[in-house]
Amino acid sequence: MKPEIVHIEGGITAAPGFRAGGVHCGIRRRKLDLALLVSDHPATVAGVFTTNKAQAAPVLANRIQLRQTETCRAIAVNSGVANACTGERGLEDAWRMIRHTAAALDLPEDQVLVSSTGVIGEYLPMEKITAGIAQLAPLLSAEGAHDAALAIMTTDTCPKEYAVRVRIGGVPVTIGAMAKGSGMIAPNMATMLAFIATDAAVTQPALQLMLGRACQLSFNRISVDGDTSTNDMAIVLANGLAKNPIVTEGTPEFDELADALTHVMIVLAKMIARDGEGAQKLIEIQVRGAATEAEAEQAARAVANSNLVKTAIHGADANWGRILAAVGYSGIEFNPEQISICLNGVPILAPGYQIVIDEEKAKRALEWEEVTILIDLCRGDHEVRFWTCDLTKEYVHINASYRS
Amino acid sequence: MKPEIVHIEGGITAAPGFRAGGVHCGIRRRKLDLALLVSDHPATVAGVFTTNKAQAAPVLANRIQLRQTETCRAIAVNSGVANACTGERGLEDAWRMIRHTAAALDLPEDQVLVSSTGVIGEYLPMEKITAGIAQLAPLLSAEGAHDAALAIMTTDTCPKEYAVRVRIGGVPVTIGAMAKGSGMIAPNMATMLAFIATDAAVTQPALQLMLGRACQLSFNRISVDGDTSTNDMAIVLANGLAKNPIVTEGTPEFDELADALTHVMIVLAKMIARDGEGAQKLIEIQVRGAATEAEAEQAARAVANSNLVKTAIHGADANWGRILAAVGYSGIEFNPEQISICLNGVPILAPGYQIVIDEEKAKRALEWEEVTILIDLCRGDHEVRFWTCDLTKEYVHINASYRS
Repeated sequence: MKPEIVHIEGGITAAPGFRAGGVHCGIRRRKLDLALLVSDHPATVAGVFTTNKAQAAPVLANRIQLRQTETCRAIAVNSGVANACTGERGLEDAWRMIRHTAAALDLPEDQVLVSSTGVIGEYLPMEKITAGIAQLAPLLSAEGAHDAALAIMTTDTCPKEYAVRVRIGGVPVTIGAMAKGSGMIAPNMATMLAFIATDAAVTQPALQLMLGRACQLSFNRISVDGDTSTNDMAIVLANGLAKNPIVTEGTPEFDELADALTHVMIVLAKMIARDGEGAQKLIEIQVRGAATEAEAEQAARAVANSNLVKTAIHGADANWGRILAAVGYSGIEFNPEQISICLNGVPILAPGYQIVIDEEKAKRALEWEEVTILIDLCRGDHEVRFWTCDLTKEYVHINASYRS
Repeated sequence: MKPEIVHIEGGITAAPGFRAGGVHCGIRRRKLDLALLVSDHPATVAGVFTTNKAQAAPVLANRIQLRQTETCRAIAVNSGVANACTGERGLEDAWRMIRHTAAALDLPEDQVLVSSTGVIGEYLPMEKITAGIAQLAPLLSAEGAHDAALAIMTTDTCPKEYAVRVRIGGVPVTIGAMAKGSGMIAPNMATMLAFIATDAAVTQPALQLMLGRACQLSFNRISVDGDTSTNDMAIVLANGLAKNPIVTEGTPEFDELADALTHVMIVLAKMIARDGEGAQKLIEIQVRGAATEAEAEQAARAVANSNLVKTAIHGADANWGRILAAVGYSGIEFNPEQISICLNGVPILAPGYQIVIDEEKAKRALEWEEVTILIDLCRGDHEVRFWTCDLTKEYVHINASYRS
């Protein structure tokens, strides 16, 4: 039997041994824009990063850091400026941000990671950032999680925090997390920004493996606009304070911790999709009856990225032809005559192109704030879930405004 | 020297020997919704069709027709209902539409093609269509081209017609054309609906070959919303009345006719992109300096399909980071540090991440109704042009309305 995963209060500092905080250093107007997370003990670290060829400076710096160490003590994050497409100067700024954080917290430089989110193609205002780091460093506490979650937001309308408790090898372990992301969301091998801190004891290879797999099932299965960011990253720190038997690959404890991590990351991923730019609805696409998981994901991604599907759901229009058309151009092999479609449990299309829709019932079901599109390909027994949001006029408004 | 391609008045009946017309048969409210095109002489025919796995009934019927004959005398087209995802009954309806057209025009059934566009998943109102065909058949004329172009429209805001004259082997040849398409536009091996009628004399294999190649450079290089339709088709009829030496593959005349056909199809493709649902601007994406043409197209398509780029252009925001991010996730290999970007001739980014943007100048240039995004990858000497439109609140309004 799988151990129960219990949702608890708190965010990134829910597990013991972590402190955090956020301040306004002056990059964004009147909003918190600089966050620090510190682990009081060396924490095993794993990270995944964007697959975009244009990788932001903090992504490049973190990749170098993680090649040299298996532990991490602190992460500094700013919002407002992404430090992406900024060349040599941008990379130097990322290293300076690392050095200043290390100095302010009295840590070795190789124990610090760095992250930025915001406008692409602008340089970091380094004076504001270094002053902010100096100001924030002495203020960090277990109570600072919420401020940290606020400080990493950009077009997000709400902070994204989550925490759970689960037994690993019978020992209680806590996982806390925060994330941000609202636009340029179609993560590939990572998310916008997600940070997870746990007191679990786990080896670095095991942690990296479970993080990669969990990303596949969570952040890699959301899309707000089909745009994969230059700055995506997900980082997990594990400080071992729970004193559970150290988790390694191939043990029952690996599956227990991986399940809990995946659960936390799916919750964060759905929070990001639900808070997509301009979104009013969370859309879950379930593709069943696929011959392979990859095929199911390919079909689900095409539906999730279809502007026509997203606007139809926005208008509570059970326009299933658009859903079928999206599956049709997704590139997967299937027989359209075998497909069936349900919208929030209301049958729309049955195999053999039987149009069984009850328009009134469908319209009412689509007025909910969460809409599940269930597509059965009738080809096999693989399935996936994928999340997106509706496409609204507000999305256009946000993104046609000057330089967001 | 290539022969001059001269734009002339007229549409689908610009070449001699073609008659057309459009009527309101009652599918759409108060709008023309049924068109007929007739060739008075057997015309060599070539067609390309959607690659969507869910193929509409008229697409399936036409594919069968074209396997059995190299000539065509008539095409019947309705708007309002796409006859897509309608199974056996839909296919039978397509054949009935073909039989009624053949009967009304006194033609063999194998000389008729059929096409539908509109809502997916509804059956054709066959009584209205057969009555409309009977009503329209005696009214066809060379003057009916504009009505035909009106009758094939759906969410289009304007009819799309074009005609040119060109010398093929020294003999004047006319090419007339009409097209429709505004949403669900990301054609793949074909367009929404495009019909081309010419008096050129050309063999069927040569015509099919040049149509396929021209599609690659025109309809396959536009995207309104990234959604590939179930009903896309492009059909060209060539009745030979120009008495030019019959065009075959591998001759100078082949290139002459292919160039003219490509020119006509690019003009139609740009008309479709410019009239994209809710669009206010035509966006041309030029990718230069690519190692291969396929690579250039892949990068251009990613930029064209980026909602973030399309909303930025809508807002006259030179948000080049979004352009670079789209190239970055397009899947092509390139060095982001070598890329340069110009917007309507205004340099934005120079190689080595040199941000050379003059914000005021860029903003003014982006307020034009046509915006050219020039991206130089600095990898080779291949280039493509690709067209899309901006993403506006009106797009959301149109597509969130009940069942368009």
